[in-house]
Amino acid sequence: MLLKIVELIGVVAFAASGSLVAVSKRLDIFGVCLIGVFTAIGGGVLRDVLLGITPPTSLNTWRFFTTAVLTSLVVFFLHAAVRRLRREILVLDAVGMGLFASSGAAIALDAGASGQAACLIGATTAIGGGVLRDVLVNEIPLLLQRDLYAIPALIGSTAVVACSGLGLNTDIALVVGTISASAIRLVALWRHWSLPGPRLVDD
Amino acid sequence: MLLKIVELIGVVAFAASGSLVAVSKRLDIFGVCLIGVFTAIGGGVLRDVLLGITPPTSLNTWRFFTTAVLTSLVVFFLHAAVRRLRREILVLDAVGMGLFASSGAAIALDAGASGQAACLIGATTAIGGGVLRDVLVNEIPLLLQRDLYAIPALIGSTAVVACSGLGLNTDIALVVGTISASAIRLVALWRHWSLPGPRLVDD
Amino acid sequence: MLLKIVELIGVVAFAASGSLVAVSKRLDIFGVCLIGVFTAIGGGVLRDVLLGITPPTSLNTWRFFTTAVLTSLVVFFLHAAVRRLRREILVLDAVGMGLFASSGAAIALDAGASGQAACLIGATTAIGGGVLRDVLVNEIPLLLQRDLYAIPALIGSTAVVACSGLGLNTDIALVVGTISASAIRLVALWRHWSLPGPRLVDD
Repeated sequence: MLLKIVELIGVVAFAASGSLVAVSKRLDIFGVCLIGVFTAIGGGVLRDVLLGITPPTSLNTWRFFTTAVLTSLVVFFLHAAVRRLRREILVLDAVGMGLFASSGAAIALDAGASGQAACLIGATTAIGGGVLRDVLVNEIPLLLQRDLYAIPALIGSTAVVACSGLGLNTDIALVVGTISASAIRLVALWRHWSLPGPRLVDD
Repeated sequence: MLLKIVELIGVVAFAASGSLVAVSKRLDIFGVCLIGVFTAIGGGVLRDVLLGITPPTSLNTWRFFTTAVLTSLVVFFLHAAVRRLRREILVLDAVGMGLFASSGAAIALDAGASGQAACLIGATTAIGGGVLRDVLVNEIPLLLQRDLYAIPALIGSTAVVACSGLGLNTDIALVVGTISASAIRLVALWRHWSLPGPRLVDD
Repeated sequence: MLLKIVELIGVVAFAASGSLVAVSKRLDIFGVCLIGVFTAIGGGVLRDVLLGITPPTSLNTWRFFTTAVLTSLVVFFLHAAVRRLRREILVLDAVGMGLFASSGAAIALDAGASGQAACLIGATTAIGGGVLRDVLVNEIPLLLQRDLYAIPALIGSTAVVACSGLGLNTDIALVVGTISASAIRLVALWRHWSLPGPRLVDD
């Protein structure tokens, strides 16, 4: 139950981040909804395609899709107000990212993936939507550039694989994974951590 | 039989639209064919991957692929002449879009997708090729911007799901879906309908 | 055994080409590794998704992923030195491309694909990583523009399908496919072959 609520919070945060980008690119109302939906459920669709779970769960159930569309519509009509909540959205987004990375890894293990594949597919679940968003609006994905986003996602999915390797039950693994991923992401945001870029001697 | 002919007309129109864009980006002969093929069969490949139909039908049968390559070659060599047919291509493209959205939804229902998933996957079949085309040539997908294209596709696939829910047979569902999607698209083109963009107060 | 070595050489060359591009785009250390990994295993993941082999082999086994990450790290820290090996990397890349196209076609035939699908999926295995790389760093894929890269890949996968049609065993098919694809690619590089672009009368 709690899990489902956190999941929906994640969908709302992801859809809001996607549709805000779409608004700033001046897409029309449909484009804004489409980018919002892609950002929110794209990672889950990628996960299911990689695991052979077809049709993908996020397409097959109405909860995620409807939530993402409603969020995008709110953003479309009230984007100035939503933009003022930027900080709050970033926090919810971090929680959603942590949960998606963890549940992605758990679902992958369930589907028979190796530990390594589960780590990678879990992280893909969390970051896939954002990458799709950036590719569609024709930007180099933010997380490739400076955002410390994918590393926390990888840590969350790895934590789930580790917990499962230790024989802990799935609920505990999900809590550990989500909290570790989200906490690292929030600290990174708060302390403005970023990764080193290449040293370009010849500049 | 009629279905197959309409399908091939759609492939020709999609391949022509893709390869015309590629020519205007000055890609070489292979790039023009590749973009033409992606535009024509990309939506169908996405549909099959989402439904777990592997290898995808459009790769596994020669009809679609060969038609798309031949169309692209014609466009490559005669693009000035083809460009003069722009209006006719748009009409054929609308018919193809309607059929792909409808048949995509019908195939999804057949593969056990929920009604919602069938609507979404049907629309994906119709618009997926165009989105791939725009991503590959590094443009923000047109249909995200102003083109009223995805809405008619969604209406077509939804019509098929509704007909099937009413117990009508598949052929009738396909005819209803194709005609409704294509007609709305054509009227939208003719009346220059477009969707509202976000109101940006701060401009 | 030899096959596995050539495969790893291909992964190294692909990861190096990807991470060099990422360095020149000034991505951070994680972005460089991610683009390196995508370039190296993206084609194989696409192949497996198209064939319904889930979870994809390249995610499920540690060899490819680890090799790609290590190569990307070396490039990140020593990119000036690696850049001086550009010529050598191009040669290894040609060998890897040939092998991936050939083994992709063989795996597709094994999975029940038609001859045509096997040709297309083999070529996709070889070029998919490079296309993903270019889409992610927001460039029009090089191979759509002037690089004679996809044609040799198609020739290699077609050679494998032809050999298999003639009843030759898979090892021989792989050798014939790899050598023909790589040789054509190398000659094309050496002679600066390129494909004709569209004649634009109206410039």
